[in-house]
Amino acid sequence: MDIFERSIRLHQELQGKITVENKLDIQSKDDLSLAYSPGVAAPCEEIHNDPSKVYDYTIKGNTVAIVSDGSAVLGLGNIGAHAAIPVMEGKAMLFKRFAGINGFPICLTTQKTDEIISIVKNIAPVFGGINLEDISSPRCFEVEEKLQDIGIPVFHDDQHGTAIVVLAALMNFCRLTGRKMEDLKIVINGAGAAGIAIARYLGKKDRNARNQQIAKEIIMCDTMGIIHKNRLGVNDIKEELLLYTNPRNLMGSVEEALVGADVFVGVSKANLLNRSHIQAMAKDPLILALANPIPEILPDEAMAGGAFIVCTGRSDFPNQVNNVLAFPGIFLGALHARAKRITLAMKFAAAQAIASAVEHPTRDQIIPPPLDETIAHRVAKAVADAAH
Amino acid sequence: MDIFERSIRLHQELQGKITVENKLDIQSKDDLSLAYSPGVAAPCEEIHNDPSKVYDYTIKGNTVAIVSDGSAVLGLGNIGAHAAIPVMEGKAMLFKRFAGINGFPICLTTQKTDEIISIVKNIAPVFGGINLEDISSPRCFEVEEKLQDIGIPVFHDDQHGTAIVVLAALMNFCRLTGRKMEDLKIVINGAGAAGIAIARYLGKKDRNARNQQIAKEIIMCDTMGIIHKNRLGVNDIKEELLLYTNPRNLMGSVEEALVGADVFVGVSKANLLNRSHIQAMAKDPLILALANPIPEILPDEAMAGGAFIVCTGRSDFPNQVNNVLAFPGIFLGALHARAKRITLAMKFAAAQAIASAVEHPTRDQIIPPPLDETIAHRVAKAVADAAH
Repeated sequence: MDIFERSIRLHQELQGKITVENKLDIQSKDDLSLAYSPGVAAPCEEIHNDPSKVYDYTIKGNTVAIVSDGSAVLGLGNIGAHAAIPVMEGKAMLFKRFAGINGFPICLTTQKTDEIISIVKNIAPVFGGINLEDISSPRCFEVEEKLQDIGIPVFHDDQHGTAIVVLAALMNFCRLTGRKMEDLKIVINGAGAAGIAIARYLGKKDRNARNQQIAKEIIMCDTMGIIHKNRLGVNDIKEELLLYTNPRNLMGSVEEALVGADVFVGVSKANLLNRSHIQAMAKDPLILALANPIPEILPDEAMAGGAFIVCTGRSDFPNQVNNVLAFPGIFLGALHARAKRITLAMKFAAAQAIASAVEHPTRDQIIPPPLDETIAHRVAKAVADAAH
Repeated sequence: MDIFERSIRLHQELQGKITVENKLDIQSKDDLSLAYSPGVAAPCEEIHNDPSKVYDYTIKGNTVAIVSDGSAVLGLGNIGAHAAIPVMEGKAMLFKRFAGINGFPICLTTQKTDEIISIVKNIAPVFGGINLEDISSPRCFEVEEKLQDIGIPVFHDDQHGTAIVVLAALMNFCRLTGRKMEDLKIVINGAGAAGIAIARYLGKKDRNARNQQIAKEIIMCDTMGIIHKNRLGVNDIKEELLLYTNPRNLMGSVEEALVGADVFVGVSKANLLNRSHIQAMAKDPLILALANPIPEILPDEAMAGGAFIVCTGRSDFPNQVNNVLAFPGIFLGALHARAKRITLAMKFAAAQAIASAVEHPTRDQIIPPPLDETIAHRVAKAVADAAH
């Protein structure tokens, strides 16, 4: 049986990969009176008088909603709320496995931006954080942005999870090769959630994030090639990107952008590149070929073209960029700090923690393996420190 | 320490009475590939192609949302979403304890009827059922009614949970005394969620519910006394009530209504009655004094007035009317049957199952004790049978 048949069988057996369990066994009338009526009135009243006590008496402080509208699920696209549930349950498992956090899937029928925003605001009381998941671009940006002031962290993992791990890889690439972030020329192919987040992290100066590192040059490409100032009818997000990408206003294809570049970040298209494209880059480049399941270029081919390090999204090659390295620890740290939002400084701290978890980076281990149990706790500590 | 201090301590210790746990321990890359990416794509695609498979591959078939806007919590009133969480967590515990169902609290910031309806529709995909809880009257009726066609059962427990247990008590009162439901004169004090549900069950003929039993006369009272046709400016719900209550168009106080009545159901006001009111009723009446924590009349006082049986909402007297006898089994049965809604026939079947669980009803045990573990499964079976 292949992985897909085995997965079907597993899902059928489990009928739900997560379960809600009681932390107290209700056996006696007294148990019932304490956990429920009439005793429960006491914590209710205390929270009513002092809302901050909700963190002391309920699941809120350790619970995250995994919210999706099913519009951009894995590589499957817009499969809708019901079909997205297995992914969101899987995500909940990762929250528990790596950070001990209660994740609960909230899959929404609506795909209207303003409705999603309003629903998330309204269901927020029970949750200490909101993990937005698999919401298609560009709606995902507006949804996340408009939810930044609801008092609990709201984090779109498809943007930041990937971007933080990419940033960690970049940090260790610099560490290993002696290069500096501010000298790097970086080409990003794919102007979706992850691509735009990476460009913002490395290009858009945030005065509040003192630990931010800005790259020398970022060139952003989409399906039409390099995004440049002379292109007509670009959307708001791409207009914003032009403020801090493509300073030389290059035009042309992604292949042309790659000439002399130190880093390629692919977050979009299978089989985009071959070895000759890598050869045209600067010496010993870093290739992040993250399209899944088929990367922009396979590691062997990239190496044959002179790549120094290759990362993919796959578990069967070295250097897997897997956002499980980021999100459990990010939320754990934010929850511990009772942060109201997850700032860029916290994201850079998370990347730094992931990078420094690899004591001696090598070409085959530029980032830690996804199942390393220590990562979430290192990340959490760094994020909580950065929050304070 | 009293119960309230002990409850505070318990809540503080637990910081959440429920927890989300994984049903599979993720240890290896293979586990990750099966439960999450890439394997999870297979069940996602199957659900996308055949939405009914969501019941085979996800938590939906065994998961209920406990939805409240915190507007009418216990005896505490409108304490809001955050302060309601401890109650909803307690409810989730009861779902797990008695029916093995995953209950998850959804506490809403909004208290607008149309927004609540829209949110519940939009979050429905993950859930196999919706338990509405502690939403104030009369909004609760509209919310529940407008959610009856969303394809999964929606059940407002404050209406039906109490009403079903009251109905079970009435059934066994008849069994014990040889009376018939159709001969009973019933006075209900309190035109809120529970009171209205009881009146509807016993007074409003539902042709689809062949097992429905109609009482001879129901008189409904609110804070202004008997609800009668000459009263000006009654709301829609009370206008509906007048179609099947108070056939003689009595006017006056609840005390006047009680003269000659066989049954008193109080779901509203502490210390409303004394023994003389009971003395004015028919011989050997049934008194359901369900106001909490202080009933309409204490059992000793009611007995002194000639009551045959007294039920309260309290665990320290015999015959506790506790909706935990109803809702876990109701949902379990509805989920097993994949019922799209919970019909009156299913509710009567639930009441019958609760009543018949007491093999030999006595004055001190007219309904089963709330912690009887067999009840939910008896109720579930009866409800599932009635659904088919």
